[in-house]
Amino acid sequence: MSVILINPFEVAPGREADFIQLWDAAADYMARQPGFRWTRLHQAVTPNPKFAFVNVAEMDSAEQFLAAISSEEFAQLTAPMKDFPAAPTLNQVVRTIDG
Amino acid sequence: MSVILINPFEVAPGREADFIQLWDAAADYMARQPGFRWTRLHQAVTPNPKFAFVNVAEMDSAEQFLAAISSEEFAQLTAPMKDFPAAPTLNQVVRTIDG
Repeated sequence: MSVILINPFEVAPGREADFIQLWDAAADYMARQPGFRWTRLHQAVTPNPKFAFVNVAEMDSAEQFLAAISSEEFAQLTAPMKDFPAAPTLNQVVRTIDG
Repeated sequence: MSVILINPFEVAPGREADFIQLWDAAADYMARQPGFRWTRLHQAVTPNPKFAFVNVAEMDSAEQFLAAISSEEFAQLTAPMKDFPAAPTLNQVVRTIDG
């Protein structure tokens, strides 16, 4: 069963471009890993958001996600993201309503 | 331009069914509002998650979203959700990568 990564990030005003540059490099890496389906980066339009960005991504399995983030390359790509506190979870979809 | 609501919820262990019941009622309301496109409820499989559930929904516009959540009916449906601290944002998609 596929898994959905949802990762909200706190990004201070003025640091948005720095964050997106780091995200682009990490996303490029993830897109090359086995099990990758898609990823989308969302930027808040709400004023003064708790989380200025939220990444949502789907992978074929939790095992493939964990393998992807366990490499030295991923650790190096994401080390500078320590400036941006995150609250990631792996999820299953439990409800869907289409309009 | 459409907007993506992302709403992470803190739900204490043992309260999952209560939360889903409230979410179902609110989602049924939202699905009847102008501009509704889709909604998905995600449940964390990560142990001890900060956010046990995350709702993601798309609406045609921020104005239609704000109109939908401004009604007395919505206020009554969601009042019991005060037990579940949330960190909602309205978002734009700024990056998409498809595998």
